Amino acid sequence: MFVIVVYDFNVKRVAKALKICRKYLYWVQNSVFEGEISRANYVKLKYELEHLMHKDEDSVIFYTFRTQKYSSREELGIKKGGDENII
Amino acid sequence: MFVIVVYDFNVKRVAKALKICRKYLYWVQNSVFEGEISRANYVKLKYELEHLMHKDEDSVIFYTFRTQKYSSREELGIKKGGDENII
Repeated sequence: MFVIVVYDFNVKRVAKALKICRKYLYWVQNSVFEGEISRANYVKLKYELEHLMHKDEDSVIFYTFRTQKYSSREELGIKKGGDENII
Repeated sequence: MFVIVVYDFNVKRVAKALKICRKYLYWVQNSVFEGEISRANYVKLKYELEHLMHKDEDSVIFYTFRTQKYSSREELGIKKGGDENII
């Protein structure tokens, strides 16, 4: 399945959230990740973020798609996030 | 069509970007909007954001879908963005 994750974490936890998401997905913008993921890894990803987050302060949205067939993606402007930050 | 827009604008322009997106879509998180949109309005939305943005500083990603049939959406944590801010 294909997933898009957008999060808004308190600055105290945002570095950890980034690290979790990058284990499973590509970083495409400041707080946006996307990629193909197995159902098992999707469950793990959700579990890890849920465990980290403070539900009264942080927010995560997961969009999941069975197929990318009916979708397209357009990007304008500078590329934020991405490979240059992977050590 | 259904569209998800995620942006990362310089703070100088972010209020204007928000205003533009809210004309066409629902605000679901800090810098995330979604909704059904006509092709004509999608073109207008892209034009307005492109006109506002500084391409060396700002970033916008548009995900478009012909149908929502194969998608689902899960939200964890606090609801950021949304109706309470619409005047």
